[in-house]
Amino acid sequence: MRKHSVDLNSDMGEGFGPWTIGDGVDEQIMPLISSANIATGFHAGDPNIMARTVQLARDAGIGIGAHPGFRDLVGFGRRTIAEAPQALVNDILYQLGALREFARLHGVSLQHVKPHGALYMHAAASEAFSRLLIETLQRVDPGLWLYCMEASVTYRVAAEYGQPVIREFYADRDYDRSGSIVFTRRVGRLDPRQVADKVLRACIDGKVRTVEGDDIDIDFDSVCIHSDTPGALELVRETRDALTHEGIRTAGPQPRTAQH
Amino acid sequence: MRKHSVDLNSDMGEGFGPWTIGDGVDEQIMPLISSANIATGFHAGDPNIMARTVQLARDAGIGIGAHPGFRDLVGFGRRTIAEAPQALVNDILYQLGALREFARLHGVSLQHVKPHGALYMHAAASEAFSRLLIETLQRVDPGLWLYCMEASVTYRVAAEYGQPVIREFYADRDYDRSGSIVFTRRVGRLDPRQVADKVLRACIDGKVRTVEGDDIDIDFDSVCIHSDTPGALELVRETRDALTHEGIRTAGPQPRTAQH
Amino acid sequence: MRKHSVDLNSDMGEGFGPWTIGDGVDEQIMPLISSANIATGFHAGDPNIMARTVQLARDAGIGIGAHPGFRDLVGFGRRTIAEAPQALVNDILYQLGALREFARLHGVSLQHVKPHGALYMHAAASEAFSRLLIETLQRVDPGLWLYCMEASVTYRVAAEYGQPVIREFYADRDYDRSGSIVFTRRVGRLDPRQVADKVLRACIDGKVRTVEGDDIDIDFDSVCIHSDTPGALELVRETRDALTHEGIRTAGPQPRTAQH
Amino acid sequence: MRKHSVDLNSDMGEGFGPWTIGDGVDEQIMPLISSANIATGFHAGDPNIMARTVQLARDAGIGIGAHPGFRDLVGFGRRTIAEAPQALVNDILYQLGALREFARLHGVSLQHVKPHGALYMHAAASEAFSRLLIETLQRVDPGLWLYCMEASVTYRVAAEYGQPVIREFYADRDYDRSGSIVFTRRVGRLDPRQVADKVLRACIDGKVRTVEGDDIDIDFDSVCIHSDTPGALELVRETRDALTHEGIRTAGPQPRTAQH
Repeated sequence: MRKHSVDLNSDMGEGFGPWTIGDGVDEQIMPLISSANIATGFHAGDPNIMARTVQLARDAGIGIGAHPGFRDLVGFGRRTIAEAPQALVNDILYQLGALREFARLHGVSLQHVKPHGALYMHAAASEAFSRLLIETLQRVDPGLWLYCMEASVTYRVAAEYGQPVIREFYADRDYDRSGSIVFTRRVGRLDPRQVADKVLRACIDGKVRTVEGDDIDIDFDSVCIHSDTPGALELVRETRDALTHEGIRTAGPQPRTAQH
Repeated sequence: MRKHSVDLNSDMGEGFGPWTIGDGVDEQIMPLISSANIATGFHAGDPNIMARTVQLARDAGIGIGAHPGFRDLVGFGRRTIAEAPQALVNDILYQLGALREFARLHGVSLQHVKPHGALYMHAAASEAFSRLLIETLQRVDPGLWLYCMEASVTYRVAAEYGQPVIREFYADRDYDRSGSIVFTRRVGRLDPRQVADKVLRACIDGKVRTVEGDDIDIDFDSVCIHSDTPGALELVRETRDALTHEGIRTAGPQPRTAQH
Repeated sequence: MRKHSVDLNSDMGEGFGPWTIGDGVDEQIMPLISSANIATGFHAGDPNIMARTVQLARDAGIGIGAHPGFRDLVGFGRRTIAEAPQALVNDILYQLGALREFARLHGVSLQHVKPHGALYMHAAASEAFSRLLIETLQRVDPGLWLYCMEASVTYRVAAEYGQPVIREFYADRDYDRSGSIVFTRRVGRLDPRQVADKVLRACIDGKVRTVEGDDIDIDFDSVCIHSDTPGALELVRETRDALTHEGIRTAGPQPRTAQH
Repeated sequence: MRKHSVDLNSDMGEGFGPWTIGDGVDEQIMPLISSANIATGFHAGDPNIMARTVQLARDAGIGIGAHPGFRDLVGFGRRTIAEAPQALVNDILYQLGALREFARLHGVSLQHVKPHGALYMHAAASEAFSRLLIETLQRVDPGLWLYCMEASVTYRVAAEYGQPVIREFYADRDYDRSGSIVFTRRVGRLDPRQVADKVLRACIDGKVRTVEGDDIDIDFDSVCIHSDTPGALELVRETRDALTHEGIRTAGPQPRTAQH
């Protein structure tokens, strides 16, 4: 049950023009992770930043994923917008294609797609949206890994279609009893040691403490640490060091087809 | 010298959400043209409209091109924004990729790219921008046809690199002595007969009258009629009928490598 | 119970740059109504259009109101965005002030404020948002009339604070049993005669038929016809003519303090 | 000639949603300056930030000014957009009114207006734009102070109309022989001591060294330090301390009518 290796993913390129969010330390975080979710312009990211971030990830040998969000710069994609599945899937295709062009420019392929923020949570809860998204991925890129929580509709629907998934564990978010994270627009500064311990326990014992105070079982292929969390670099470094110390390698995810 | 066939191109999908520009008659114009320049979201167009327009063009068997513009919805991409070549090329790649994904969804390839409005005119005049754009196209898609005027820096630089070009004749814009169009943000209603006659003369005699009152020689592979010109459908219909009547076929362009 | 006069309001200035929505007939609608809700840039409208529309309304002697919406151009403000009351109230203040400056330029005062689309419906349902909005109006402009439905939280809270309100009847929307309209992103073409009859019945008998098939009592001070409804000009004209024919004058609303 | 007091102005509120630019230290800079140019949403700033920043400035007893820019978030208003004077003036009115509403909310008046970045430079050079802007200010707020360089068309035109002006000295920008600053999109980290010395020399001797290597005479009422310059807080602190040490008080500007 104890993991020997785990993917470590973080959102990269979440600036816009001259603006930064969090600590603006993508270049230091990049070599410590194994998969980069690159913002694709709707909630964050712009073409210059995308070009630079793809190159950075490629040079570091990191898996590159599209990180599409709601069209909501001011809300950083963390506000749900009531919209029909078809329009949201088109928003995702648009952003996916935009990033794919920069990957093409730099001679690499996309490894994965991971919706951002409120769009991720919307997919996690909406059968209609998850279904249409995955049906569409089956048409445009059936081998693209879809990042999601195991405790989500997205995971269940992906299993149905055979779209490969990467199940995530959120190091810097709280869990509730359902196995889902508690969505929040932003978190404050966290203690790196506590975050690392939480990840270790999840990797070794397969357990996480919920906000209700219980322990639940949790399984996953990748650990996510948000780069806009204050002090993100320390969280990533401490977590990676702790994993290494326990003999758990940080490495690109093993794509899997979700289980029925 | 007289043409036997000519491409007819028009900008398609230039709405945004529920808004329309011009007469909102893309569906009627589409079957009359041979190449569609599909707006890619920065000056006009949104993912829903792009998805629908690509499908419409594919179903009509029309060549599909990306129509990237300055990031300028309110100005409809017809205002020059002072920006460095690299940033503009990244803007184009972003938009090109976004459209390519919808082409991928609908099982077609992109035929061409044509910058929109002020971005087209900026490329026509700027050596640095045209050069970087074409160098970048050589990396991502060396077979993609680039629409431009023969009297432009873009044409000359494309020739140098061997990027295939389609030279345009503008049915609904005035020409100056240099062989370039006179850029304008919007034109009023034009007389369909006069527009058709202007196109016929250009196709048959290779001549166009300039704003200075002279005739100049003009050569081209494609005729452009803007869909936001009031009464665009009539302009396209009259022009196409006039061409047909003269035995000149409307057909997809013959890609050519610009001549040194 | 039969009305002798009623306000007729419509959304004006709902373009963006060169785009139009609906039939683009503000100039013809303006002289037929008595109150104009002028779009303030977040869901529609831009500074040029606002300047022009304020001048148009002033010249026609029409009451001028701010029509603030969610920051959502592509969705035309008809998609709910999950956001905290304080942020939404700040969005409204921003837009209100922007319009007030154009009123100042043209030497007129603002008559009213009416949130647009999904923001109006959100206010109608949310106690926290309505309360903060009205508390804030009490600070910046306690005499500004607030347009709302009688069957709304907004109306009840306005009554509590003494903010003057104008209760609306929607000519081109369906009603449900609660006395609220059934929210929709867009309606199709309606029959002008049926719309006029519905308004007459509401003005004369104080009744409206609901989607459930019942008649309910309805009271109001103003009739709203959306200018983005296809054929809006005919709807306004037919309604106004029908009112005139029945001896019901179209005139600026009589501000009232909502009743406890 | 030596100044006894000088205004110290800085751009405040230049964030957008969760993003920051520069060091995000408005709260520390605010008490050190005497006039705040508050971003009004087009190049930076959003309604939440505007509300908070107006309150911060009011509480610190600082003069509040509108800082309108080109509609260009991604370019932070530092890219010139080719646009007609009327449209730009409408953009400014829109933003001015938006800020005025927050001032109204917090019970204060606007002290001044200062266009941002490329819009400021465009006004400095364009007679038509400066003239229309000042004619319009004469209509909406003839007592509003307009910040500009003495070596600008803006200053000359303001003098003609009697619009009160505040002439600026830029501590963190280079000067050329004409007495204008050399426009740049962004500067790197500067030495606080050198910046303070440059300001002192300008305040005491009325001289500044140009990029051509000459000294020129310079006169002004206010010193500007940009808050997005890296290390801005140190620049402001060192400059203010140096002024104090030389017996030059930092205090709100003395409005003046530009001299013919």
